[in-house]
Amino acid sequence: MTSKDVTPFAQRGDLSEVELGKSFCPKFDDNGLISAIVTDRDSGNVLMFAHMNAQSLRETIATGYAHFWSRSRAKLWKKGEESGNLLRVVEIRTDCDQDALWIVAHVEGAGVACHTGAQSCFYRRLVVPPGDANTLVLEHVALPRGKTV
Amino acid sequence: MTSKDVTPFAQRGDLSEVELGKSFCPKFDDNGLISAIVTDRDSGNVLMFAHMNAQSLRETIATGYAHFWSRSRAKLWKKGEESGNLLRVVEIRTDCDQDALWIVAHVEGAGVACHTGAQSCFYRRLVVPPGDANTLVLEHVALPRGKTV
Repeated sequence: MTSKDVTPFAQRGDLSEVELGKSFCPKFDDNGLISAIVTDRDSGNVLMFAHMNAQSLRETIATGYAHFWSRSRAKLWKKGEESGNLLRVVEIRTDCDQDALWIVAHVEGAGVACHTGAQSCFYRRLVVPPGDANTLVLEHVALPRGKTV
Repeated sequence: MTSKDVTPFAQRGDLSEVELGKSFCPKFDDNGLISAIVTDRDSGNVLMFAHMNAQSLRETIATGYAHFWSRSRAKLWKKGEESGNLLRVVEIRTDCDQDALWIVAHVEGAGVACHTGAQSCFYRRLVVPPGDANTLVLEHVALPRGKTV
């Protein structure tokens, strides 16, 4: 695999082009990674957050299924490859400075995005117990836009 | 400011406690930062993506307004402090391994989250021009869940 194969993206030009132009020039960090937010096509909920390197982004674009870079395992990771809960990409967006991606996706298989079995990885919210403003706890709650975890 | 002031969060215990428990033990990376996804309370759209350090997370919890760590300016950043487009926090969620935050917020002021004047920073989507699968371009488009940028 050549360098060209894994980085088919535009060179980053001036700020105006990056922010307002049509060139897709994602900014990978010092570790070669870009942040990727995945939301559910139907509910709009945030399902998971992970990172992509150039190869996983290229695979995502080429196959229509979300691929990430597993930092813990240091390998390309096709999400749901073992569980069947693949993420079929509906749309890929990028932000103003192109250092983050928003993936709108449909979860195949059992419709479960989290390895814990929850629909979304974000199944807990932060609460401050009454009378104890210094103690923060997490509470398991339903997703905000109608679907339960 | 003491160390305790800026890190009032629980120590990370075993994986089961981190993933399924009630202790809020956010994982800051080697630069002391955690990723924060901000979505709009009403539309559910992703508005922006930024990073928080312990201090900005603490300020966010204490004030109810989103604070971040500006990596480019290397300083605490109260979002909207100059523009008036403050992000009033409705809910803070964390993911299974507590290395990312999902902030559900209401944008005050002009309702604009991006410094470019767009409602959301994610105003462009990736498209592959017909007949030219090797050329990726960005297209300015409306937000997927009803609101335009």
